[in-house]
Amino acid sequence: MRQPVDLPKAYRLLNHGPTVLVSARHGGLRNVMAAAWAMPLDFDPPKVAVVLDKATYTRELVEQSNHFALSVPCQAQVRVVHAVGSHSGRGIDKFADYGLQALEEPTAQSPLVAGCVAWLDCVRIPQPEQEARFDLFLGEVTGAWALASVFTAGHWHFDPAQPELRTLHHIAGGHFFAIGEPVGE
Amino acid sequence: MRQPVDLPKAYRLLNHGPTVLVSARHGGLRNVMAAAWAMPLDFDPPKVAVVLDKATYTRELVEQSNHFALSVPCQAQVRVVHAVGSHSGRGIDKFADYGLQALEEPTAQSPLVAGCVAWLDCVRIPQPEQEARFDLFLGEVTGAWALASVFTAGHWHFDPAQPELRTLHHIAGGHFFAIGEPVGE
Repeated sequence: MRQPVDLPKAYRLLNHGPTVLVSARHGGLRNVMAAAWAMPLDFDPPKVAVVLDKATYTRELVEQSNHFALSVPCQAQVRVVHAVGSHSGRGIDKFADYGLQALEEPTAQSPLVAGCVAWLDCVRIPQPEQEARFDLFLGEVTGAWALASVFTAGHWHFDPAQPELRTLHHIAGGHFFAIGEPVGE
Repeated sequence: MRQPVDLPKAYRLLNHGPTVLVSARHGGLRNVMAAAWAMPLDFDPPKVAVVLDKATYTRELVEQSNHFALSVPCQAQVRVVHAVGSHSGRGIDKFADYGLQALEEPTAQSPLVAGCVAWLDCVRIPQPEQEARFDLFLGEVTGAWALASVFTAGHWHFDPAQPELRTLHHIAGGHFFAIGEPVGE
């Protein structure tokens, strides 16, 4: 079950470095891409940073709509994460072509990817010079959600019996690590 | 054994989202802090982004020296990673106080932390406005190294028999995940 995450805890959805899906929509068009280069930028209000290459169609939609969402995919989705990270959505509907569905979340401005384990809906903080020079996009998180079976009360708790729900951490070329076991102090 | 990493492959040291140690030195002083908010920013020449809070002494040294290093710590270091992430080094030598040693790497401009599994030596790309507004620092990687027992030929390969060498991924409050198992396509 998807549950809202308190915004001051939203950074924890990205803190351990998962690969994300970046999605956006504008004028009836939508797209989604994979990005390993995303991180929290602030606690409260929560902000994020993500690298969006100039060649990507998702970047165009972000620039047009001023919104984007980060969805945190899981091990069950490894094939589709690699696929949407390897092909452009220009001229197609990548959601439809890759069998991805957008969640029905009326408060979200960008499409959240179903089957993921956490989601951050963001409004772009425009930085035209940095976006042009470094492909670096910043956003303020305006909504956050997580699957209650892996994240509650501000903490991740992956069940060893459900490896398919573990977050993915991209190495290169479609090879990923799943997140591992807790290491206490 | 520490081996150089080809610079166009250096992004892979951070691609899977590990927590890092950020270090810098200037005028005979040095410091080190933990940062979960670091990511690659470009492939070749490799660049990185890292968030350095205004309160940190390491940030002062980065601003003064225009250099910093990212060291990628491992499970064996979980206590010291949390410790150097929780206490300021202003007025003390955190290396000495926490039993950390700097590697003898004559080509590195900043101190590399011994006992880690990978290292990136960086020159700051000054962005005064963004640094002030978002605490966001950018750097170009000028040297990269990794422990041959966990990273060779551009790829991580963690041995299940050596959990102590797995990278750390911070959740919150000194709790970490170790990186887990490979997930292929």
